[in-house]
Amino acid sequence: MQMIEAVPNFSEGRRMEVVDAIAAAIQTPGVHLLHRTSDWDHNRSVLTVAGEPDAVVEGLFQAVRVAADRIDLRQQRGVHPRLGATDVVPLVPIQGIDLAACAVLARRLGQRIGDELGLPVYLYEAAATRPERRNLADVRAGEYERLVEEIHLPQRQPDFGPTVVGSAGAVIVGARPFLIAFNVFLKSSDAALAKRIARAIRESSGGLPAVKALGLLVDGQAQVSMNLVDFQSTPPHAVVAVIEREARSLGVEIDRSELIGLLPQAALLAAAAHALRLPELPADRVVEIAIRQAMELKSGRRFS
Amino acid sequence: MQMIEAVPNFSEGRRMEVVDAIAAAIQTPGVHLLHRTSDWDHNRSVLTVAGEPDAVVEGLFQAVRVAADRIDLRQQRGVHPRLGATDVVPLVPIQGIDLAACAVLARRLGQRIGDELGLPVYLYEAAATRPERRNLADVRAGEYERLVEEIHLPQRQPDFGPTVVGSAGAVIVGARPFLIAFNVFLKSSDAALAKRIARAIRESSGGLPAVKALGLLVDGQAQVSMNLVDFQSTPPHAVVAVIEREARSLGVEIDRSELIGLLPQAALLAAAAHALRLPELPADRVVEIAIRQAMELKSGRRFS
Repeated sequence: MQMIEAVPNFSEGRRMEVVDAIAAAIQTPGVHLLHRTSDWDHNRSVLTVAGEPDAVVEGLFQAVRVAADRIDLRQQRGVHPRLGATDVVPLVPIQGIDLAACAVLARRLGQRIGDELGLPVYLYEAAATRPERRNLADVRAGEYERLVEEIHLPQRQPDFGPTVVGSAGAVIVGARPFLIAFNVFLKSSDAALAKRIARAIRESSGGLPAVKALGLLVDGQAQVSMNLVDFQSTPPHAVVAVIEREARSLGVEIDRSELIGLLPQAALLAAAAHALRLPELPADRVVEIAIRQAMELKSGRRFS
Repeated sequence: MQMIEAVPNFSEGRRMEVVDAIAAAIQTPGVHLLHRTSDWDHNRSVLTVAGEPDAVVEGLFQAVRVAADRIDLRQQRGVHPRLGATDVVPLVPIQGIDLAACAVLARRLGQRIGDELGLPVYLYEAAATRPERRNLADVRAGEYERLVEEIHLPQRQPDFGPTVVGSAGAVIVGARPFLIAFNVFLKSSDAALAKRIARAIRESSGGLPAVKALGLLVDGQAQVSMNLVDFQSTPPHAVVAVIEREARSLGVEIDRSELIGLLPQAALLAAAAHALRLPELPADRVVEIAIRQAMELKSGRRFS
């Protein structure tokens, strides 16, 4: 069974009846709403859905349609930057599917949004058609207001849909690996220690691949705040081991960690194998997973 | 959804057609055969099945019936001790059910075997009715041959069924926690080091609760071989941490570990939380598990 996740962001975090309508629209058959969160100041809502690829793509299309009907970017204000009513739609491979296949799905969804809803669509990250569109912040630069003025320029030509910006703005669609948001608290109130560790581990300053990190003070405690943007390159247990070593060299200790959101099963298995000193720990060595596999083999389905 | 495992042992490891018949009988609707193994020298087969409690109890009853029909203890010889055709039936809680509830199921199964199949039944471990019957080896002492002579004695009175031993012998039924079989290899060919570490960690010599351990040489490498008989008391990652410390104090290092059979999901989550320094890691923080929960809530079933 193939399984993807999508984490669409909508530019509405105040009118709950609008977010409810979007959340209802997204749940077409086979689409499971795992999480939703709305922020008044950002005036933005983030839904997390999962299911088989075709089901999720259909649910996303329906949600984009409702958001375009109900959200008017000419009125919308919030502290979070945005280009459209549905601002960004990342597709994430979970099981039985890779990033390249998710990029294909993203392009298919983008084309349908452009053709059937008449919205300009930009493809980003693994689905990007130009290198300068890989980075989300670059695609969103200037937000809705500047896109209205600039969409006729060659460099702002959408990947799908019309070269015209209406009240729903544009939609940014793409594919990316699963992102793990993970923080490590130090036994210290000195933000400088967290900043030094963050600098040592983040990719941009020569640290670990696919690690973004900041050092800050949270409730008076030093915290290394991270996004692990490709846990297959650098899994969270490897990051913890390096932070532990760096911290020790600075004369400080790890207090505890904090997981924001969810962890993929593969990262869980890898962390447990590390703790148990097992060279490998395949999913089917876990009782509950082995039972499910036996059940699903019998029923003709497969979900490891 | 409640889920139990059962690991019945049958006193037949040579006539594969008999083991096949038992394996077929056990797979009543809802019973999933996860694993089977037969040993010629032991003349014994072990099946691992799982499913909802009532389904598993029904499957076990059918398997015990077939084994009693097809195995004659008056002829059966093997190096493994045995009391009956179905020698021992442990029920193991997996999910949504505790050990006490499994003990109740074991008594219900035992009563049915006694009443409907006319076999003497002894309850052991968490299902035992007398302290001296908790230990399997004590219940099986003297094997089939001595039970034939002694069953009329008050101390050998069965818990269910007749005080008569036929060709199928007696059945030992009980409930126990999940057992994790786990070995740690040292970077050494000195068995004495493994023996010292085993002595330091096993419960019987004052070590860790619910840990049985032996030190031995396997393919020329020192190995600490363990059964963790209650991983809630002492989880495998805690054992590894203690072995690591003990090994270091002896000037040797862990090479790698080896998991025999399966690991419960709760032990996996605990090991990963340890590696990631998370104070807790609930199952529904794992993407695939969260997706399943959403799917099963929708379909009215629940399996975390």
